[in-house]
Amino acid sequence: MEIDYKHIKVIGFDADDTLWVNETFFRDAEMEFARLLSPYETANKIDQELFKKEMDNLELYGYGVKAFVLSMVESAIEISNGSVSNKTLSKILDIGKSMINQPVKLLDGVEEVLKTLSKKYRLILATKGDLLDQERKLEKSGLTDYFHHIEVLSDKKEANYSKLLNHLDINPSEFLMIGNSLKSDILPLVNIKAHAIHVPFHTTWAHEQVSEEETNGKAYKTVSSLRDILKFLN
Amino acid sequence: MEIDYKHIKVIGFDADDTLWVNETFFRDAEMEFARLLSPYETANKIDQELFKKEMDNLELYGYGVKAFVLSMVESAIEISNGSVSNKTLSKILDIGKSMINQPVKLLDGVEEVLKTLSKKYRLILATKGDLLDQERKLEKSGLTDYFHHIEVLSDKKEANYSKLLNHLDINPSEFLMIGNSLKSDILPLVNIKAHAIHVPFHTTWAHEQVSEEETNGKAYKTVSSLRDILKFLN
Repeated sequence: MEIDYKHIKVIGFDADDTLWVNETFFRDAEMEFARLLSPYETANKIDQELFKKEMDNLELYGYGVKAFVLSMVESAIEISNGSVSNKTLSKILDIGKSMINQPVKLLDGVEEVLKTLSKKYRLILATKGDLLDQERKLEKSGLTDYFHHIEVLSDKKEANYSKLLNHLDINPSEFLMIGNSLKSDILPLVNIKAHAIHVPFHTTWAHEQVSEEETNGKAYKTVSSLRDILKFLN
Repeated sequence: MEIDYKHIKVIGFDADDTLWVNETFFRDAEMEFARLLSPYETANKIDQELFKKEMDNLELYGYGVKAFVLSMVESAIEISNGSVSNKTLSKILDIGKSMINQPVKLLDGVEEVLKTLSKKYRLILATKGDLLDQERKLEKSGLTDYFHHIEVLSDKKEANYSKLLNHLDINPSEFLMIGNSLKSDILPLVNIKAHAIHVPFHTTWAHEQVSEEETNGKAYKTVSSLRDILKFLN
């Protein structure tokens, strides 16, 4: 589908798995969690239980590493029928701390794309998750100066984006969002008549997955690498 | 000290313990935590160890209930020398969940003050802590419509406020902050030449306490109840 980008004034970038690696660290953490609890259950069952716990706690805890660790602790107690050792629980807390301390690993082409686009557009960062954690990652990334505005959202639904565009004082037709999650970065934008370009990451959290039905006939573009967006926007 | 408020355009309100009760829930949680760990240590020692743990984790976890719960879990394991039961740890997780689910209890005079001031000034909410948690409390409070802008800050230091004023496009001399914490709501503002009115709450977290030396000669006003600010601003 051809999309006309000439009215775009502001470009929003998702952060995790769009600008830098994130989901990979969660996958590694889940594998380590399953390993720690292997005396009690199969890795598959442990994965399922942890995901269920995260979903149960999502409304209460929201997104981010701290929420993830709290769900791991709760899951570990349940999976082990209340017999998991303090030592194992300490290791689970340590998984969280090392996730927070992880260095930021930029994805291919990020710096070039931001540098080029920042000359012509106002760039903003629109990410969800933990406020402190996202600010820290941005700081570590060295990308702060490319952005006119940083918005950490508690969720990325249509209402959150409408509020953001209102705050930025722009029309949806002037806004383009770029991100790896169809559910969080693409569909809500398309639904409020803004623009969106999908740059898939190799790993997608089950919670962010959408059915083919939901994307059918929706007006967004998919590119295989962030660098490809320069073809449309430069 | 007489302060001239005629240039004030925007008034910032702290939220926790300025608009609604917060610290009391943390004090109650700490008492419950000490009770749960009473087989291992005195209440006084448990309080000290938990506070020390919170301070050790502050840079990593930031403020808010999730950070507090993670520090309680870690402390419980250490205080018990790795022998605390899964049952007790589950109760600690439950303390956190019930804190998050607590109904919002507005402080005396809040609605009247916001209603009056919102007719003459742009009001903003400037709070630190957990993004989702603060948004949820604001929602529950029914106060959302009084505010032009909500800012959840990862910390409340001079640099955070300077950035906020810059974002709001106003001079420090046009901004008045109202809050219960000398450390977070008053001194940073005075130091960047903005205005501040201190409305003490009966309980102050040790981390927020400042020495008399730090407040000596600083140009801020203290009132005993939020309603009193109407004397200066109406």
